[in-house]
Amino acid sequence: MGFIITFKKTQKILLLMIYDCVIIGRGPAGLSAAIYLARANKKVLVIGKENKIWKNEVNINNYFGIGEITGKLLMEKGEAQAKSFGTEILNSLVTKISVDEKGLFNCLANSKEFTSKKLLIATGSSAAKKEIINQEDFIGRGVSFCVPCDGFFFKNKKVIVIGNGEYALEEAIELLNYTNDVTLVSNGKKLSFDKKLLDDKEIKFEEFIIEKIIGEKKVEGIKTNKEELKIDGIFIASGNADSNDLARMLGLLVENNKIIVNSEMKTNLSGVFAAGDCTPGFGQIATAVAKGAVAGLTISKEI
Amino acid sequence: MGFIITFKKTQKILLLMIYDCVIIGRGPAGLSAAIYLARANKKVLVIGKENKIWKNEVNINNYFGIGEITGKLLMEKGEAQAKSFGTEILNSLVTKISVDEKGLFNCLANSKEFTSKKLLIATGSSAAKKEIINQEDFIGRGVSFCVPCDGFFFKNKKVIVIGNGEYALEEAIELLNYTNDVTLVSNGKKLSFDKKLLDDKEIKFEEFIIEKIIGEKKVEGIKTNKEELKIDGIFIASGNADSNDLARMLGLLVENNKIIVNSEMKTNLSGVFAAGDCTPGFGQIATAVAKGAVAGLTISKEI
Repeated sequence: MGFIITFKKTQKILLLMIYDCVIIGRGPAGLSAAIYLARANKKVLVIGKENKIWKNEVNINNYFGIGEITGKLLMEKGEAQAKSFGTEILNSLVTKISVDEKGLFNCLANSKEFTSKKLLIATGSSAAKKEIINQEDFIGRGVSFCVPCDGFFFKNKKVIVIGNGEYALEEAIELLNYTNDVTLVSNGKKLSFDKKLLDDKEIKFEEFIIEKIIGEKKVEGIKTNKEELKIDGIFIASGNADSNDLARMLGLLVENNKIIVNSEMKTNLSGVFAAGDCTPGFGQIATAVAKGAVAGLTISKEI
Repeated sequence: MGFIITFKKTQKILLLMIYDCVIIGRGPAGLSAAIYLARANKKVLVIGKENKIWKNEVNINNYFGIGEITGKLLMEKGEAQAKSFGTEILNSLVTKISVDEKGLFNCLANSKEFTSKKLLIATGSSAAKKEIINQEDFIGRGVSFCVPCDGFFFKNKKVIVIGNGEYALEEAIELLNYTNDVTLVSNGKKLSFDKKLLDDKEIKFEEFIIEKIIGEKKVEGIKTNKEELKIDGIFIASGNADSNDLARMLGLLVENNKIIVNSEMKTNLSGVFAAGDCTPGFGQIATAVAKGAVAGLTISKEI
């Protein structure tokens, strides 16, 4: 990737705005952290899409002090509370994060870059993404989940990116830094972004369904519902960039799909924190709120 | 202490009621645990006095989803929520806890014994109790904080119990199992219980102020504002029985005045859990609520 370009971009944004903390994720953990940070006069941006589970009229009655409330109303109250202290909220997904040479974090969302001193990942739980029946057999042998991590190993090779969303598009674009032979495969699904976005990129597109990976010791090809194709690498980027994907982009320690943190919600990378269901432990609103609070307190002290 | 009497008492209560869990402490941690337990159809008793800090009209605005609320109202809502699932609440202090030969826990409160399968300590933070200027020099050398732990070492010795509340009275009564020479010393304070309660007990009472402990390698006496007295042992039981005292009665691991727990809120003693500000970590409503929730979930699974 063009180092100089990134540097220039960062410089431009430096003049505009550096957030004290960008929080990725808009659930109870992220918003609880935002409340603590904004209340302590920190400049905070929460980036996240409204979570569908909170949109439902599910009744919550085990969160202390609130009696019975719908998930929707609880989230509305929590967001209003975070905003009342000055938190900004951006209704978007984050498709990429990186750390620059100054130790600042850059988040790509809505095709814009947002720069911050600290980063909190609070994207909720994420399951391992299963796209092809035998993908497990080829992880590290041609199957990867992270272009910034492994793209380098596919220089001038023939690779596919599996996915139908913006995240897959970002991964495919990123791959062009390493090879010109990139195909986006929607694996039978409809694209969730405007197909025109592909037009000015040198990315091929296929809708076929992948039935299995072919290969002895490493990926040699794929069998689709139409044909057999020779390829060298497969990047799985289905759905949105979840906590596992974001963690991989930064090199965070992940075990059993959870980001490893200490009691202060610090990850293994300085300046990066994680809270809520993307970290180990009980997945309750109460625990997410507490982890967010602890992350907020810890980050406040560090800024 | 009369083993047979304890056994008979337990037997009587067995016929009446065994709670699944007794929760000592009536703050956010204790009540959050009660919500989880009672909601899971467990028989729960919360024992605690209303905490003065919650009585004040202090505004809380950093607890996710609740906007701004007074501590008083938050606690009222939390108690109503716990009761709505069947939690019983007893407005009392616990002065003694013990575990019987069947592994059941007995809590003494309001001069009654309450029996449970599991025990949760959620009594909030507690500071080390300082009654005499040089008491630190004599801890383990005649100064103790726990009659059930150390009373045995003062058989037929001359001992004093420092304190002016029910907890001190209980400790003094307990000491009579080991020695007949027990003096309750209020250390200049007024008794907070009816002095008549002392009349039928063979406990002496003094109001003097202790200026310092006298002794070479161990307690040999005390210098009061009136005289010098020869004594063998001092039990400090000022204030109420707090988490440290309760922990000592059961032999729980305590570090820096906090009860040590694992990520599931289990202490080192099977069946005993601790949550909230009496455990290590950040002392926030959010964290207390989460720890209570985790304790409640863990205990539910064990019953």
